Amino acid sequence: MNINITVLLLSGGTSSRFWPLTHKMSQQFLGKSFLDRQIEQLKDCGFKNIVVVSNTKLGTDFSSSVPTVVQKGNGQGAAILSAATYIKTKPILVINADDLVSPLLYKKILEIAGADKNILVGYKTKRYFPGGYLVLNGKKIAHIVEKPGEGNEPSSFVRLVCDYFPSSDVLFNFLNKIPNTNADTHYEDTLTAMMKSGEFFEMLEYEDVWIPVKYPWQALTLMDHYLAQIKKSTIAKSAMIHETATISGPVFIEEGVRVLEYAKLTGPLYIGKNSIIGNHSLIRYSIVGKNSVIGFGSDVTRSYLGSNVWLHSNYIGDSVLSDNVAMGAGSVLANLRLDEGEIFSEIKGERIRTHRSKLGALIGENSKIGVSVQIMPGVKIGADSQIGAGVLLQQDLPNHKKCFVKQSHVIIDNHTRKSPDRGGFRKNI
Amino acid sequence: MNINITVLLLSGGTSSRFWPLTHKMSQQFLGKSFLDRQIEQLKDCGFKNIVVVSNTKLGTDFSSSVPTVVQKGNGQGAAILSAATYIKTKPILVINADDLVSPLLYKKILEIAGADKNILVGYKTKRYFPGGYLVLNGKKIAHIVEKPGEGNEPSSFVRLVCDYFPSSDVLFNFLNKIPNTNADTHYEDTLTAMMKSGEFFEMLEYEDVWIPVKYPWQALTLMDHYLAQIKKSTIAKSAMIHETATISGPVFIEEGVRVLEYAKLTGPLYIGKNSIIGNHSLIRYSIVGKNSVIGFGSDVTRSYLGSNVWLHSNYIGDSVLSDNVAMGAGSVLANLRLDEGEIFSEIKGERIRTHRSKLGALIGENSKIGVSVQIMPGVKIGADSQIGAGVLLQQDLPNHKKCFVKQSHVIIDNHTRKSPDRGGFRKNI
Amino acid sequence: MNINITVLLLSGGTSSRFWPLTHKMSQQFLGKSFLDRQIEQLKDCGFKNIVVVSNTKLGTDFSSSVPTVVQKGNGQGAAILSAATYIKTKPILVINADDLVSPLLYKKILEIAGADKNILVGYKTKRYFPGGYLVLNGKKIAHIVEKPGEGNEPSSFVRLVCDYFPSSDVLFNFLNKIPNTNADTHYEDTLTAMMKSGEFFEMLEYEDVWIPVKYPWQALTLMDHYLAQIKKSTIAKSAMIHETATISGPVFIEEGVRVLEYAKLTGPLYIGKNSIIGNHSLIRYSIVGKNSVIGFGSDVTRSYLGSNVWLHSNYIGDSVLSDNVAMGAGSVLANLRLDEGEIFSEIKGERIRTHRSKLGALIGENSKIGVSVQIMPGVKIGADSQIGAGVLLQQDLPNHKKCFVKQSHVIIDNHTRKSPDRGGFRKNI
Repeated sequence: MNINITVLLLSGGTSSRFWPLTHKMSQQFLGKSFLDRQIEQLKDCGFKNIVVVSNTKLGTDFSSSVPTVVQKGNGQGAAILSAATYIKTKPILVINADDLVSPLLYKKILEIAGADKNILVGYKTKRYFPGGYLVLNGKKIAHIVEKPGEGNEPSSFVRLVCDYFPSSDVLFNFLNKIPNTNADTHYEDTLTAMMKSGEFFEMLEYEDVWIPVKYPWQALTLMDHYLAQIKKSTIAKSAMIHETATISGPVFIEEGVRVLEYAKLTGPLYIGKNSIIGNHSLIRYSIVGKNSVIGFGSDVTRSYLGSNVWLHSNYIGDSVLSDNVAMGAGSVLANLRLDEGEIFSEIKGERIRTHRSKLGALIGENSKIGVSVQIMPGVKIGADSQIGAGVLLQQDLPNHKKCFVKQSHVIIDNHTRKSPDRGGFRKNI
Repeated sequence: MNINITVLLLSGGTSSRFWPLTHKMSQQFLGKSFLDRQIEQLKDCGFKNIVVVSNTKLGTDFSSSVPTVVQKGNGQGAAILSAATYIKTKPILVINADDLVSPLLYKKILEIAGADKNILVGYKTKRYFPGGYLVLNGKKIAHIVEKPGEGNEPSSFVRLVCDYFPSSDVLFNFLNKIPNTNADTHYEDTLTAMMKSGEFFEMLEYEDVWIPVKYPWQALTLMDHYLAQIKKSTIAKSAMIHETATISGPVFIEEGVRVLEYAKLTGPLYIGKNSIIGNHSLIRYSIVGKNSVIGFGSDVTRSYLGSNVWLHSNYIGDSVLSDNVAMGAGSVLANLRLDEGEIFSEIKGERIRTHRSKLGALIGENSKIGVSVQIMPGVKIGADSQIGAGVLLQQDLPNHKKCFVKQSHVIIDNHTRKSPDRGGFRKNI
Repeated sequence: MNINITVLLLSGGTSSRFWPLTHKMSQQFLGKSFLDRQIEQLKDCGFKNIVVVSNTKLGTDFSSSVPTVVQKGNGQGAAILSAATYIKTKPILVINADDLVSPLLYKKILEIAGADKNILVGYKTKRYFPGGYLVLNGKKIAHIVEKPGEGNEPSSFVRLVCDYFPSSDVLFNFLNKIPNTNADTHYEDTLTAMMKSGEFFEMLEYEDVWIPVKYPWQALTLMDHYLAQIKKSTIAKSAMIHETATISGPVFIEEGVRVLEYAKLTGPLYIGKNSIIGNHSLIRYSIVGKNSVIGFGSDVTRSYLGSNVWLHSNYIGDSVLSDNVAMGAGSVLANLRLDEGEIFSEIKGERIRTHRSKLGALIGENSKIGVSVQIMPGVKIGADSQIGAGVLLQQDLPNHKKCFVKQSHVIIDNHTRKSPDRGGFRKNI
């Protein structure tokens, strides 16, 4: 059925679990923000009316391509209500902006959407997911059980917020009627009330891509997703590739890029405007923002680099470096434990599984890292921080901190007998 | 004279001074074990009957190409007796498997061997060697003086165990007759008894190659010996050499090897099956086992690498890395003292001269070394160990240990005035 | 006017503020000492009689191309008097050997020099300079005010010692007459006395290059000056440049130099006799002395390297390395503060502005630096010193010292549960 639907793209969250990176929806992929990529996908699927619900911090300039409203009050219910005046059509589709899904889901919604039924999406899971489980009665959704706990799942269908309502009026009536005593559950409480009142909810079963983006290392998951869309090489006319450099696999190289002597590029790879890939560097399966400099002898592998990032003889593996990060010569972002085990990360006091055995560092904006620094796998470094030369960083560092090594020395006269002779070097060619 | 001789290749030792490397006779050179290379040399010289005397740990599968007997009891005398049933000829030649000598020695033995005389080899030395010295009476060996001490040498001929007996029966009679009260001297006591009883022993003077292999750094000496046998390049058909790589000097490259962009190979060099020489790497005068990966920007010089060794932007100089060793980015095996003096090594509580001013690390199997580690010259690292990032290792580490740095930090607010500003980096291209 | 003038080149100072480098006048640039380059410039301007005033330490072999006299007594007055017997002409020109100026100054002097007037040079300054200020009365110099202090400058003309006297006899008479009670001011006292007695002193105004060389980092300023004179490439016949190496910009490469695989050279650049630029190295805007070896994977940028300097996978930025300095693999001379602020240096107990935000290390002769060392920006290392592996050096080190790290380790059994697993490495290609 071809009907006109308003899509509400909810993005009013603070993205605090995405620290030390900036707001997840602003993260740039191949020259566009994650939000704009989401909007682009919706448009490509045929949605014409899209409204973004933002928050006071992000403001209304969050996306330039669609109307944006700043959320009043907390919770998804409040978010939907905030957008009331922007809704131009009767049918609406409510989506979490930070859920990356396949366009197939939206196409299916468009196919089955009609005047007679609400639709919720049930994502078929094999392992427990801490979300809302849909309990079915035939095709009808009987009710929703929130976070039942592992082992108590009432079905194998977890609700993926992609909610179709044939009448926004009905939804708004219920939202206004149900008291918003708990902002976190207000929207789900409303859906439950609608179900109880006899509104028909059908489940759309879905099994394809679903990446609910919460954690900073998921920037790498998104990167892989968008890099996979580069199918063949595009090299801008003003880009200069030195004749001794080598390129294999699909690369997307923007205007003004310079690739210097003996650089090796392996796609899929994206290099933003005016960035320089220095001589003797290796860069592969990565995104590099604009105006960045990958200095001499660097190795950048499966990593996301923002704009104006400066490297110099570094190893950057499975890492995320935000805008304006600079690293001194010889510093290394280690990306594998010695026991090759899974890497964990502490977020808001909780030890979180990353489901990755390869993960480097996650570094906030404007941070400067000195020479010969070692950052251990999975470590997060806040924005505006400084890490001094020789630091071995094993724990997260908050924003706006300086961290330096206290190193003890022995200084003795050079002619001292039986002195320890440590520090061998090489003298041969 | 062309006679049929059984060669007893004594290899019943524990190879304990070869720690942290595995048994010296099992060390692989150009795809074959040291033992098999020794057997090969004997066969090339014309010996057809070769028996290896092994120990309970090594077992009888030690060499697949010749009969192997497990030694019963201790000492060389016991070793010879253990092989009794394997000896098919009257004349026998007793050799220490770990003595590397020139084939010229064996050819000379074959020339002068006959029915009428026993032959011991006298190695002409200029400096003191802690072995048995041969005292001559004309061409006849009068007796043997064990370890006379420096300055008390009775001759300039040290006994190199390559003992020819025209009658194994006579030898066995004496070995059985002389009481084995001291396993270490039983065999020499037997020889002395034979001399006293009137058996004629002639000395064969020898001055060419003799490498009695005891210590782990001698794996490098053996490596040099076998690499020198590569006279011209052999590159297997399935090996892939990138067009930007350069090769000079004789190299032996096995099937499935990949040499990536801008790699520089300098022979003599051996690269085992399916190994990868990563881009921007330098490798020369070295052996690399099979399934190893020399990651980006590594420098491997005069070093022995086993199978499944993983490097990444390392300097490996004059070092031995056993199978399954992995090293993190930027770690360095230093191979020269700052004063460029001789490197010593402690073995079983004794400080041993290595007679080398260039020697890196000696690393046992399955050890993992983190990023930015510095190992000082001559340091030995046991098997199954882990060295954490940033460790400066100056002493040997036993098997099965983890070694980590305790590093002290100062963490202050970034806007603190008059804070130390350490850790300079570079920001230019 | 074309007259015959004797030039007195005063070089009797100890160059102590130039520590840890050797005497500033002996510093080699493009194959010649700074002194010889100064003499060369004077000769090129047309001066035929040049006398160097040296000191007892430097001796008379200081420059082989012109007569050299050893100074007796202290101060510039004593220096001039010491040269009395060497002065062959009536007119003389007194110059500080360590003032680098444009040849235009000398040409102007030659133009206006005559029998009737003394000439002092006034360098037009915009900011305060701690020297002697010239006070004018029309074209005549009325008197000189020494170091008036910032804000009290009596004019904008600072005296640059390039003093012309039509009669050396008159100068010597006054120098002998004025008592040398203060060696530091004796010469200026003499000039003041001459002015008072009615001798006419004219000021020659000058605004071009003036580099009064005092501090070791000024070796880099001199380097830039002399490198800028290389206008086109000169590569000696016996130099060998590998076909995979790349060269851009003007380079001066001496006999016997070898440039190995994948090296990148960016001029202006000078490489002395028989030096080797190792494979995978980057070298630019630098001077390398003779017999030096830039080992594998080094990055040398805007730096001065003496003779017999050995590098190996180092980053050398904005640094000066004296003769016979060697560095171990992975050591870095950091050249930029994390806050990108100005770098200061302590000299004789005083904190001196370097007016540089990019400055690496300044290293004296024969010093050896181990592997993975980090030297912070602006640090000075004395001659004959040793820096052990892993040292983070943040302060100057005197001559003849050894400096080593005291590092604490935790060593535990490998199978210990819940052990910290630090030190991640990479295992992928």
